[in-house]
Amino acid sequence: MTGKMKALMKQDRSSGAVLEQVDIPKPKSNEVLIKVESAAICGTDLHIYNWDQWADSRINPPLIFGHEFSGEVVELGADVKDIETGTRVTAEGHFVCGKCFFCKTGQAHICENVEIIGVDTTGCFAEYVVVPRDNVWILDKSIPPEIGAIHDPIGNAIHSALIDEITAKDVLVTGCGPIGLASIAIARKAGASKIFATEVNSYRIELAKKMGADEIINPMEQDTVELVKSKTNGAGVDVLLEMAGKDTAINEGLAALKGGGWVSFLGLPPGKTQIDLSNGLIFKGAKAYGINGRIMYETWFKMHNLLKSRLADDLMPMVTHKFSFEQFEEAFQLAQEGNTGKIILHP
Amino acid sequence: MTGKMKALMKQDRSSGAVLEQVDIPKPKSNEVLIKVESAAICGTDLHIYNWDQWADSRINPPLIFGHEFSGEVVELGADVKDIETGTRVTAEGHFVCGKCFFCKTGQAHICENVEIIGVDTTGCFAEYVVVPRDNVWILDKSIPPEIGAIHDPIGNAIHSALIDEITAKDVLVTGCGPIGLASIAIARKAGASKIFATEVNSYRIELAKKMGADEIINPMEQDTVELVKSKTNGAGVDVLLEMAGKDTAINEGLAALKGGGWVSFLGLPPGKTQIDLSNGLIFKGAKAYGINGRIMYETWFKMHNLLKSRLADDLMPMVTHKFSFEQFEEAFQLAQEGNTGKIILHP
Amino acid sequence: MTGKMKALMKQDRSSGAVLEQVDIPKPKSNEVLIKVESAAICGTDLHIYNWDQWADSRINPPLIFGHEFSGEVVELGADVKDIETGTRVTAEGHFVCGKCFFCKTGQAHICENVEIIGVDTTGCFAEYVVVPRDNVWILDKSIPPEIGAIHDPIGNAIHSALIDEITAKDVLVTGCGPIGLASIAIARKAGASKIFATEVNSYRIELAKKMGADEIINPMEQDTVELVKSKTNGAGVDVLLEMAGKDTAINEGLAALKGGGWVSFLGLPPGKTQIDLSNGLIFKGAKAYGINGRIMYETWFKMHNLLKSRLADDLMPMVTHKFSFEQFEEAFQLAQEGNTGKIILHP
Amino acid sequence: MTGKMKALMKQDRSSGAVLEQVDIPKPKSNEVLIKVESAAICGTDLHIYNWDQWADSRINPPLIFGHEFSGEVVELGADVKDIETGTRVTAEGHFVCGKCFFCKTGQAHICENVEIIGVDTTGCFAEYVVVPRDNVWILDKSIPPEIGAIHDPIGNAIHSALIDEITAKDVLVTGCGPIGLASIAIARKAGASKIFATEVNSYRIELAKKMGADEIINPMEQDTVELVKSKTNGAGVDVLLEMAGKDTAINEGLAALKGGGWVSFLGLPPGKTQIDLSNGLIFKGAKAYGINGRIMYETWFKMHNLLKSRLADDLMPMVTHKFSFEQFEEAFQLAQEGNTGKIILHP
Repeated sequence: MTGKMKALMKQDRSSGAVLEQVDIPKPKSNEVLIKVESAAICGTDLHIYNWDQWADSRINPPLIFGHEFSGEVVELGADVKDIETGTRVTAEGHFVCGKCFFCKTGQAHICENVEIIGVDTTGCFAEYVVVPRDNVWILDKSIPPEIGAIHDPIGNAIHSALIDEITAKDVLVTGCGPIGLASIAIARKAGASKIFATEVNSYRIELAKKMGADEIINPMEQDTVELVKSKTNGAGVDVLLEMAGKDTAINEGLAALKGGGWVSFLGLPPGKTQIDLSNGLIFKGAKAYGINGRIMYETWFKMHNLLKSRLADDLMPMVTHKFSFEQFEEAFQLAQEGNTGKIILHP
Repeated sequence: MTGKMKALMKQDRSSGAVLEQVDIPKPKSNEVLIKVESAAICGTDLHIYNWDQWADSRINPPLIFGHEFSGEVVELGADVKDIETGTRVTAEGHFVCGKCFFCKTGQAHICENVEIIGVDTTGCFAEYVVVPRDNVWILDKSIPPEIGAIHDPIGNAIHSALIDEITAKDVLVTGCGPIGLASIAIARKAGASKIFATEVNSYRIELAKKMGADEIINPMEQDTVELVKSKTNGAGVDVLLEMAGKDTAINEGLAALKGGGWVSFLGLPPGKTQIDLSNGLIFKGAKAYGINGRIMYETWFKMHNLLKSRLADDLMPMVTHKFSFEQFEEAFQLAQEGNTGKIILHP
Repeated sequence: MTGKMKALMKQDRSSGAVLEQVDIPKPKSNEVLIKVESAAICGTDLHIYNWDQWADSRINPPLIFGHEFSGEVVELGADVKDIETGTRVTAEGHFVCGKCFFCKTGQAHICENVEIIGVDTTGCFAEYVVVPRDNVWILDKSIPPEIGAIHDPIGNAIHSALIDEITAKDVLVTGCGPIGLASIAIARKAGASKIFATEVNSYRIELAKKMGADEIINPMEQDTVELVKSKTNGAGVDVLLEMAGKDTAINEGLAALKGGGWVSFLGLPPGKTQIDLSNGLIFKGAKAYGINGRIMYETWFKMHNLLKSRLADDLMPMVTHKFSFEQFEEAFQLAQEGNTGKIILHP
Repeated sequence: MTGKMKALMKQDRSSGAVLEQVDIPKPKSNEVLIKVESAAICGTDLHIYNWDQWADSRINPPLIFGHEFSGEVVELGADVKDIETGTRVTAEGHFVCGKCFFCKTGQAHICENVEIIGVDTTGCFAEYVVVPRDNVWILDKSIPPEIGAIHDPIGNAIHSALIDEITAKDVLVTGCGPIGLASIAIARKAGASKIFATEVNSYRIELAKKMGADEIINPMEQDTVELVKSKTNGAGVDVLLEMAGKDTAINEGLAALKGGGWVSFLGLPPGKTQIDLSNGLIFKGAKAYGINGRIMYETWFKMHNLLKSRLADDLMPMVTHKFSFEQFEEAFQLAQEGNTGKIILHP
C-alpha cells in the first residue's frame, strides 16, 4: 500500500504533538501492515506528550507515538504466510531480540534488547502501523475493538493478578488507574474473595465499583490499613496488587498485607522509595513479584480465554471516552486531568 | 450431657444397618460434643452399608458410621477454651497424630497414623457426635446447614481443582459424582474457561449443567476425546480433574489433555489400571497430582472464603434429597441407584 | 564447503547401516555447518539400526542417522552473524516451529511440529552436519569433546532431576542407562541426601557407583522396596527418577516413594502399563512429571553452569568406549549387548 | 531433678549480665528438661547484653537469655512418651500457639502468638533448660555438639537458600555473619555455580573462603556490582541472599541481580530503607522472599539430611571460639568486636 496517512507526532523536544500527513510505512519481510481502528492513550503517552524528564532521556523525535491499538491486517511482508489480510488484530508492543538469555528461556518480557513500539520505534497513533508478525495477536470475533485496543494494560493486570494464587484470597489493589481497574475485574473473575481498592479520584472510585471492588478506600479520607484490617478480622489481605508506584501506597499496602501473603509490584516509583522491609516483608514471610510487561505469550493466551469468558463485558465500563485523531488536544487534556478510564482515539 | 440418642449402626459383618438407642458419648478433655443437625451419605458409607470387600477389611462393628455432618456445639471438654456452646460447626473427619513427619511438615492430610471418623472411630449418623477441638470447623452464619454437612466432599473438590493454575484454563472433569459436581462449580468460580464434564447417569448430567459445565459428554454415547478436541481447536484441555477412578475415564482424560497440562487424580481405581504413560503424560510433559483428603487446614480456609463468596448458593442444587434417620433404608436404596446428588439425613 | 564426506546411513527398511561417501550439505541462510568431532550412540539409534517396529513407523530411508555430537563450526549461513567459524559447539536436536502454542509459551520442548535430527532430518553420524543457528550451543572451553557430544542425554537427566526440589532429599533412580547414570551424578551435585539406584547389568552397576550412588539394587536379586525402606527408616524416598520405562520398575519405584514425594517419568513404556495409581500416587498425595526432552533453553543454561562446576569431570566415567566410524558394526554390537556407558564414534 | 544451676542472667534494664545460681526448672506435662552441653551467642543476645533500644522494648528482666544450644534430655514431663532421657537434642526456639491461621496452615514459623526462648521465655544460657516436647529436635549421632548448638542460624540459612531454585545458579551473599557464612556452604552443597559474598571484616572474609565462596568482595574497597557483573559476563547473579540488613548491601545486591532472579531478604534493616524498587525488582521481573525463622519443621528435616551428608563438616570452621560460662564477659566482648564466627559457651 502506498500513499499518505494521518499520524500524531512528537516533532521536537518540547511538549505537545502535531497531526501530520506522512508516508504509509512498508512492512519488511517478517512484518505486517495494520490499519488502525482504535488506539488508546496510556500514561506513557502522557509523559511523551508533556515532554517530562523521562521522555527527554528516552524519546528521539520526530516520532509517531502511541502503543495501544487494534485494527485490521491489510498487507503482509514477503515471508508472512500464516495470517490473512482482513484479520482483526492487536499486538504485543515489546519487540524482542529472540537471542538473549531471557528470550531463550521463556522470559522474553524482560528481553535485554527490547524495543517498545511508540517509544523506541514508530508507534500506532496513525492510520497505519507496521509490526513484526510474531507480535501480532489475532482477536476473537467476540472482542469489541475498544477492548482489542487495550490488551496491553489488560495484559499487565493479568500478569500482576495471576502470577500466584488469588482464588479464595482477599485482595488489595492500590491505585485505580486503568491497570488497577482491570486488576479488580480480573481478581473478581478468578474467584478472589474480598477485594479492596484504594483511589483518591472520585471518577475512578466509581469505575472501581463497576469493576466489582467490595470496598473502595480513599486514603486521603480514610486509614487504609485500619479499614482493611477491620474488614478482615484484623488479618489483612492475602494479596497486594501495587499499581500506584507511590511511597505511601506501597507502605500502606505492605502494612495491610497478611503474613505469608504476596505482592505484585507494577507501579513504578520514580527513584528510591522508603520501604519498611522488616515489617512489610521479612517478619511476614511474604513474597513479592516485580511485574514488567506481559509474559510472552502466556499472558496473551490467558487474556484470550478470559476475555471470551465475559471478561470483555466486565471491562467495557473502563472505556470511558472516544475522540477522533483531530481532537487529540482535548483527549490529552482530559487524560491529564485524570477523570477518565481509558480514552480511545479513532483515526 | 447424659442420656440416650438415636444412632445408625453397623452391628455385624453383613449388609444393612440398624437404628438404635445408645449412650450419648462424653467428650474427652480436648474434645467437644456436637448435636448433629444434618448428616450426609458418602460413597464410603455405601461401601459400609453394603459390606463389600473393602468394608470387611477395614471396619470393626459394632460402629456408628457416617462422617459428613454439621451441627451445634453443646458440650466442651475440660481443656477446650476457645469455642462456645451454641456455635454452628462441621468437622474435618481425619483425626491426625500431630507427631509424624507429615503432620510436622504441613502435610497432615497424609498423616501416617490418621483415623477417620465413621470408619476407624465412632461416626456422625447419630444425634450427637464427639470430635477433637482441633478438627472442629466453625461455620459462617451465611452457610446453610446442608452445605455445612458436605464440607468434606466440597473440600476434596477444592483440593483437586485449586492445586495448580485453573483460571483461564480449559478443564475436563471426568465423573460427576458429588466431588466432580462440586469441582465444576469451583472451576467456574475460579475463572476456568471452557468446562467439560463426562457422566453416564442422566440425573447427574442435569446436575452438572446446574453446576455450570459448558459441555457434558456421555461417554457411552459420544467420543470424549474427539468431542473435547473439536471444541478446543484440536488442542485438548489444560486441566483434567479425574473423579471417576475408572480405567476408561483415566485414559480418555489423559488422551484429551493438552501438552503441558495438569491432572488431579482423586478417583480411586480398585487395583491396578492400564495407563498409557508415554502418550498420556511423558510426551506431553504433563504434571499429575495425587489428591488425598483436604489440606489441613489450608483447604478449609479457602472453602470458607469461597462459600461466603456465593459458592454456597452455586452448590445448593447438589443437595437433592433429605430423609429422617428413620428413613435410612430408603435413603441408602436411593444412594445405591445413583439418581441423586447429595442425600441429607436428619436425626 | 564442497566435496564429499563419510556418512553412516540407514539405506533401506531393514537392519544394519552402511558407511558411504555423500555430498557435504550446504547450510541455509539461518543454519551453520559443523565439522563433527565426536558423535554418540543413543538407544534411539539402536532402534534405527535394528529396524524395529518403532523405526519402521517413523524413519524414511535413506537417512544419515545420529543426533548426539560435538564439533566445530566451519561455515555460516548467509544470515548468521552472531557466531564465528572455529567455535566448538554441540546442538539441541529438536528443531521447533516457533509458531505453535508451546513455542510461544516457553514450552518449545513439546512443540507440536518438532523435527528431530537424525530421525526426521539428516543426522550427525557424518563428517559434517547442518543445524539451525538457533539450535547451536556453544561449548565452554573447559568441556571435553566427549561430554560435548552427550549434552542431549545429560540435558534429559537435568530436566528430570531438577524439575522439583532434590536438595536434601532421598532419591531413587530406576534404571542406570546413560540418562539414569547422569541423573545420579546430577542429584549428587545438587545436594541430594541418600541416592539409591536400580540396575540389573553388572557393568552399569559399576558405573552407577562411580556416579556416586549410595546404594545400588539389583532387582533380580533384591527386593527394591524393602531395601529402600530399610535404609530410610521405613519412610521411602522423596524423589523417584524413573528411567527404565518398565512395568516393574515403575511400580516398585512408586511403592518405594514416600508420601508427598515426587516422580519424574522419563523412561518410555511401550504401550500401556499396569499402574497402582491409588497406592502409588493418590493416597500418597504425590506429584508426577512427564519428562520430554530438554527445556529450551533453560536446561541448557543449567547444564553449562553445572558442567563447568566440575560435573563434566563427574560424568567422564560414563564415556566408556570410542570407535572410528569405520568400526561402526563393532560399536553397535557392543551397544546392543549393553555392557557400556556411552559409546563415542569419531569420523 | 531438683537443685541449683548456673545461669547467665539479664538482671535489670541495663547493659551486661550476671552469672547466678538459680533453681533448676521443672518441665510441665508436655515439656522436657535438657542438660545444656553447648550454647551459642547470637546477635540477638548481643542486643540483650548491650541493652539497646530493641532490648528495652522487648525484654523483661530478670531473664535467663540465650536461645541456641544442644544438650541431653534428662527429665520428661508427665505426658511425654515418645523420647527417652539420654537423647542428644537441640530445639526450635520459636514456641507457637498451634491455634492461629498460620499454625493451622503449615506456616507456624510466622505464628501470630509466637514466644521466643531466651527473649520472651527462660533461655538456654544455663546448665538446664526446659522446652516443649514438640520443639525438641533429636540430633543424629554423627552431629558434633557445636553444630547441634547452632541449628537455629543454620536453619535460617537453609530457609533462605533453598526457598527457590539455587542449583546451577550464580549466587551473591551480602553479609558474612554466621547466617551468611552458613548460606555459602549450603549454596555450595546444593550445586550453586559461582558464589559471591560481600564482607568488610577480614576475619569473616577468611571464614567465607573456608565456606567455599568463589569471590569475596570487600565493598569498602571494591565496587560490588561492577565486580559481580565482570565475573558473570555482565549478567549479574541469579540469586541474592541478603543477610546484612543494610541500605547499601540491599541496593548493591539488587543492582547485581540478574533479570528474572530471586532474592531472600533475611537481614533486618532497622526502620525504613531507601530501595530502588523500579530498577531493583520491577523492570527485572524479579521475585523476593521475606525470610523469618525456619519452616517448622520442613527446614529441620532438610537440615538433618544435609548435615548428615557432610554439611556438618563443611560448617565446622564457622565455630571459632569456645568459652566457659564463667568467661562470659570475654566472650561477649569478642562477639562485640566481630572477629569471630560462632562463639560457643560451655556450662
